[in-house]
Amino acid sequence: MSEATVYPRADVTVDMVVFGLDPDHDRLVVLLIKRAQASQPFDGYWALPGGFIAMEESLEASARRTLEREAGLTLSYLEQLYTFGDPQRDPRGRVISVAYLGLVRPEEVSIHADHPATADVRWWAVDDVPELAFDHTHLLETAHRRLQTKVSWQPIGVDLLPEAFTLSDLQRVYEIILGRSLDKRNFRRKIMGFDVLVPLDQYRQDGHRPAQLFRFDSERYTELLDKGLAFEL
Amino acid sequence: MSEATVYPRADVTVDMVVFGLDPDHDRLVVLLIKRAQASQPFDGYWALPGGFIAMEESLEASARRTLEREAGLTLSYLEQLYTFGDPQRDPRGRVISVAYLGLVRPEEVSIHADHPATADVRWWAVDDVPELAFDHTHLLETAHRRLQTKVSWQPIGVDLLPEAFTLSDLQRVYEIILGRSLDKRNFRRKIMGFDVLVPLDQYRQDGHRPAQLFRFDSERYTELLDKGLAFEL
Repeated sequence: MSEATVYPRADVTVDMVVFGLDPDHDRLVVLLIKRAQASQPFDGYWALPGGFIAMEESLEASARRTLEREAGLTLSYLEQLYTFGDPQRDPRGRVISVAYLGLVRPEEVSIHADHPATADVRWWAVDDVPELAFDHTHLLETAHRRLQTKVSWQPIGVDLLPEAFTLSDLQRVYEIILGRSLDKRNFRRKIMGFDVLVPLDQYRQDGHRPAQLFRFDSERYTELLDKGLAFEL
Repeated sequence: MSEATVYPRADVTVDMVVFGLDPDHDRLVVLLIKRAQASQPFDGYWALPGGFIAMEESLEASARRTLEREAGLTLSYLEQLYTFGDPQRDPRGRVISVAYLGLVRPEEVSIHADHPATADVRWWAVDDVPELAFDHTHLLETAHRRLQTKVSWQPIGVDLLPEAFTLSDLQRVYEIILGRSLDKRNFRRKIMGFDVLVPLDQYRQDGHRPAQLFRFDSERYTELLDKGLAFEL
C-alpha cells in the first residue's frame, strides 16, 4: 500500500490520565483541561489532556508533547494504558485513542493553559470529577483500576511521595489509591518484602513518637518495574 | 475535524500473538503465517497474523476477523497487549499496530490458510521461530514477557490445558512459560492459594501413584481475571 492510496483511515490520538495526591495527601487527583468554547465538539467540557499524533513522532513523544502544550506539564513517569477504539467513541468519526497513565507530585510542578484550545487546566479530586467530554470518564475509570491493580503486585509511590517519607505516609498513598484502609502490620510486612525501601537516619515526630523516614532504592525500584511490568516497554 | 479534511493519517493494524502448548505439552508454540510471494513488503517471510482494521469495527472485532480470515482460527481468550507506534516500524509509511495476545489449545482447533495473502500457516516453537517480518520479533518477545508476568500474579492455564488436569500438568505449563523449573511444594502452595482449583473424584496414573485430577472453577477464575486484569477491558 502506498501513501497515495485513498481510502478512509481512522484518526489516532493520545489521551493522558495523570494522577497525583492533593496537597494534604488525602485524595487522589487527576489533571483535567477545560475545552475552549471554540473547541468542537464538547466545547466548554472538562476533558483529559490529549490530541492528535504527529506523523513523525512516537506515541509516547506525542503524549509528552501534548501534555506540555496543553498543560505546561513535563512528566517523568508515563506508561501506556490501553488503546480505545470503539467506532462510536467520537462524534467526529473514527478516532482511536492510545491512552497513557502518568504519576506526578502536583506540588512540584506548575500547570498552565496557554494553548488556544485549552480554556483552563486544574487538578480535580478523582471522586469529584464533572461529566467529561467524549468517553473520557471511561478512560479515567480504566486508569484508576489499573493504578489499583498495580499497587497490589508492585511497589508504587516513588512518583507520588517526596523523597523522604514514613511508612505511614506510604500506607496512606496505598489507602488513597485503593479507597479502603489497610491493616498496618500486613502492609508493612508486604512493603518490606519488596526490599525496595532504604531506612534513613532521620525521624519525624508522628503523633506520640518519632517515625523513621525512608527513601526508595531507585535501582531496585527500577529493577522491579522492569521485571514486573512487561507491558511497559 | 470533518472527514473531508485532507492531511496525512497513520494506518492502523491489529497483530495477534497466539500462544499454545505443543502436542507433547513440552514447548510453548506461537501461530505464524507465511506471507504470500505477492505480499509486499517482506514477501515470503513468516509473520504474526494481522491486518488493517475496518472503519466500522472495534479493534477486538478486527483482531478476531483477521485471525479467522488468515488462519481459520476462532479464539475464546484474547486480550489487548500493547500498541506499537514507532514511526519507522513499517517501510510502507506510518503504521500503528494494536497487538493482541491470545491463548488456545492447538490440538482443539484447526488452522488453514485460505486467504490470498497467506501462503502457509502453522505453529512454531517460540524458541525456534525464524526471522519475522516487520518488527514482529519484538512484538512476539513483548507478548512472551507479558505471559511470563501474568503467571506470576494470577492463575493461568484454563485456556491452555484440557478440562481435567493434574497439578503436575499445571506446574509444567508454568515451567514452559517461565522457561525454568519450579519447586513443587512452593508451586502447589501458591496455586492452591488462588483458590481456583476444584479437585475431581478422578485420578490418573502418574508415575508410581495415582495423581488427582482438577478442574478450574471458572466463576472464580473469571472473578480473579476481572479483579487482577484492569488492563483487559
